[in-house]
Amino acid sequence: MSTATAAIISCGNELILGSVVDTNTAWLATRLSEMGIATTLHVTIGDDEEDIQNAVLQAAGKAPIVIVSGGLGPTLDDVTRQGVARALGVDLYEDPVCLEHVKGFFARRGRTMPDTNRVQALVPVGAKAIHNTCGTAPGIRAELGGSVIYVVPGVPLEMQEMFARSIQPEIQAQGGGQAIVKKMLLCFGAGESDIANQIADLMKRGRNPTVGTTPHEMVIGIRVVAVGKTPGEAQALLEKDVAECRRRLGDLVYGEDQTTLAEAVGRKLLDAKLTVATAESCTGGWLAKSLTDLSGSSGYFLCGYVTYSNQAKAELLGVPAAMLEEFGAVSEEVARAMAMGCKARAAANFAVGITGIAGPTGGTAEKPVGLVYIAIVGPSRVEAHRLSFGEHLLRWQIRDRATKVALNMLRLAVLESQQQ
Amino acid sequence: MSTATAAIISCGNELILGSVVDTNTAWLATRLSEMGIATTLHVTIGDDEEDIQNAVLQAAGKAPIVIVSGGLGPTLDDVTRQGVARALGVDLYEDPVCLEHVKGFFARRGRTMPDTNRVQALVPVGAKAIHNTCGTAPGIRAELGGSVIYVVPGVPLEMQEMFARSIQPEIQAQGGGQAIVKKMLLCFGAGESDIANQIADLMKRGRNPTVGTTPHEMVIGIRVVAVGKTPGEAQALLEKDVAECRRRLGDLVYGEDQTTLAEAVGRKLLDAKLTVATAESCTGGWLAKSLTDLSGSSGYFLCGYVTYSNQAKAELLGVPAAMLEEFGAVSEEVARAMAMGCKARAAANFAVGITGIAGPTGGTAEKPVGLVYIAIVGPSRVEAHRLSFGEHLLRWQIRDRATKVALNMLRLAVLESQQQ
Repeated sequence: MSTATAAIISCGNELILGSVVDTNTAWLATRLSEMGIATTLHVTIGDDEEDIQNAVLQAAGKAPIVIVSGGLGPTLDDVTRQGVARALGVDLYEDPVCLEHVKGFFARRGRTMPDTNRVQALVPVGAKAIHNTCGTAPGIRAELGGSVIYVVPGVPLEMQEMFARSIQPEIQAQGGGQAIVKKMLLCFGAGESDIANQIADLMKRGRNPTVGTTPHEMVIGIRVVAVGKTPGEAQALLEKDVAECRRRLGDLVYGEDQTTLAEAVGRKLLDAKLTVATAESCTGGWLAKSLTDLSGSSGYFLCGYVTYSNQAKAELLGVPAAMLEEFGAVSEEVARAMAMGCKARAAANFAVGITGIAGPTGGTAEKPVGLVYIAIVGPSRVEAHRLSFGEHLLRWQIRDRATKVALNMLRLAVLESQQQ
Repeated sequence: MSTATAAIISCGNELILGSVVDTNTAWLATRLSEMGIATTLHVTIGDDEEDIQNAVLQAAGKAPIVIVSGGLGPTLDDVTRQGVARALGVDLYEDPVCLEHVKGFFARRGRTMPDTNRVQALVPVGAKAIHNTCGTAPGIRAELGGSVIYVVPGVPLEMQEMFARSIQPEIQAQGGGQAIVKKMLLCFGAGESDIANQIADLMKRGRNPTVGTTPHEMVIGIRVVAVGKTPGEAQALLEKDVAECRRRLGDLVYGEDQTTLAEAVGRKLLDAKLTVATAESCTGGWLAKSLTDLSGSSGYFLCGYVTYSNQAKAELLGVPAAMLEEFGAVSEEVARAMAMGCKARAAANFAVGITGIAGPTGGTAEKPVGLVYIAIVGPSRVEAHRLSFGEHLLRWQIRDRATKVALNMLRLAVLESQQQ
């Protein structure tokens, strides 16, 4: 059994029923991985004593660190402490310090502890209670075979506080395992397999770092995870692969980790002291919204027009009525005229025009749902793209993708203008 | 082994490492529970053949329905089909129909299938491929002992489509357990405890239906779940409690289930044949984007102005420069002038003006981050609200909440105009 693995058990009928999405596990796995501990197993079960008992026994046989979350509340369906006690083969006893804590929690709020909360002071014999600074339910620390079992509340805030305060220091003191460092490179402008083909040798199984790709709504993430005996060794391995990916993929890489396309573009505009204005039809303001997501966006975003009707396109942007008549609102000509009218009115360095059919209705054989024209006017030239996103996509996907393609065209146009 | 249970296995290093939160499981468990099938086990494992093999064997021993998601991509780290084949004790073969499907997927996009995608046509011997209508990876249907194993892609859209189209009908045909029906009532305009106090008797534990509240970014959801021997019995119980909640909460309830505030407002405007235009500063187009999320929004949305700079507020909306000077851009006066200028220019029935400080920078002692003014001009009157969202909120939260409050003010203004 390696010293650098952990298992996570999430308890709760609401998780099993799907009414609540379990965010605790991702949070815990991230914290553990930052300490060099790999989560090798994650099990979600309902509030059932026997299921909890079995899951704890199985996890303790597999990993030296087991974290059990949820099911420590005061109600009858919370049976995690009973299930853990069964796995340990011991009874529960009422811990007087815990009882005082629970009573005190209510007293500070001017209330008397309901009798139902008394159960929260129960701890398996031989185990230790873990103090809860922001709720009533104490955690539990127990040992089983060679493993340490930590039981934490399911309420994210209480769980996070207890982990950071009482569990993380203990795990860290025991030296944890190897150092694991991660980076996500974010790409836009090519499909997953095209990108994977360019870095296929780095993605071979068994290498260190491990390199994998994940697509998410047109953004392709390249996940690089390096393991080393020391953080420095892991970091050096990581940086070598990240640099190699960047070298091969060039401008396809727009950012790292949590960066959005809009942030990447916004930073570039800010750094270059350039401004942008937008003229949107089918995206309905999504591009303007994205460009103003970033704090400081008033430094580059001047104004946006959402010209949904033909009348608005003509009146607000000066698109000629004859052009709308001849080519239709969804046409390259109109996209260009929207961008040019917007640039002139806003006196911006760049302007973007978007017009298309987001559906699900409004498509024709000639101009189907998913057809979008995007035009960018920069300091030196106008560029327009015709995009067919496909009729199988949902309205929000077509709007989201049109927004992202526009942001990426703007990113490349700004890059190009700087290289001139 | 009951016939009404299922196990879910999620595969992916990104899930185990915590870089991606698994939303597929909650979605699947919800769909299964709607069919009367309880998910009794959920396991998350990394992309490892042996771990996948073991998880499938364990799950098949526990539940008659096993759903495995993720790891069907074209890259080397995707090994779910190999792991499932090992659990079945068989080899993989290349399915010619699947291969044509994968090739066709690329062909329709004018591309040649990369060789790496060939692996997506592999299916365990004796198993059946499941058609993927919106991606390259086919699913797999296999039998193991008395259990049926369904393997689906990890991309949520592809997984959902495949489940709804090919898996749900088969499970339904085999009959589920008890009938469980659910409804979510969505409220806006009061806090969770205010709403819970008004329906406290319905929220008592042990009742059928069970009624619970969940807050999510200012929207309070009331979850009603009814169980019955037949769908009709469950439905009747559900409808009784839903009607009672609606009766007590009145206009606080804006919709049901997945309805957004923007959809609720859009429907009302469409039905009443009324139009709206927007003038936004701090929300940067988010309100226009929300109002155009709905298909058919051209029926009520005329145009939007994103006037980020003072110059844009003056030039595009006619806000007097002297007013901007005297009261500042973030003031009730300017919000009113934005809305009125917008209404006059767009000739709409309603116009909304929003100006505020989304932060994290730009706040002062007098006008802190989170201060937002929203004005609505309707057919008969102007109304303005001052909102203090609090400096502890993130930029996106302040923008999101300002957008939602504006939508809710618009909803109530439309309701009021109809009652006159």
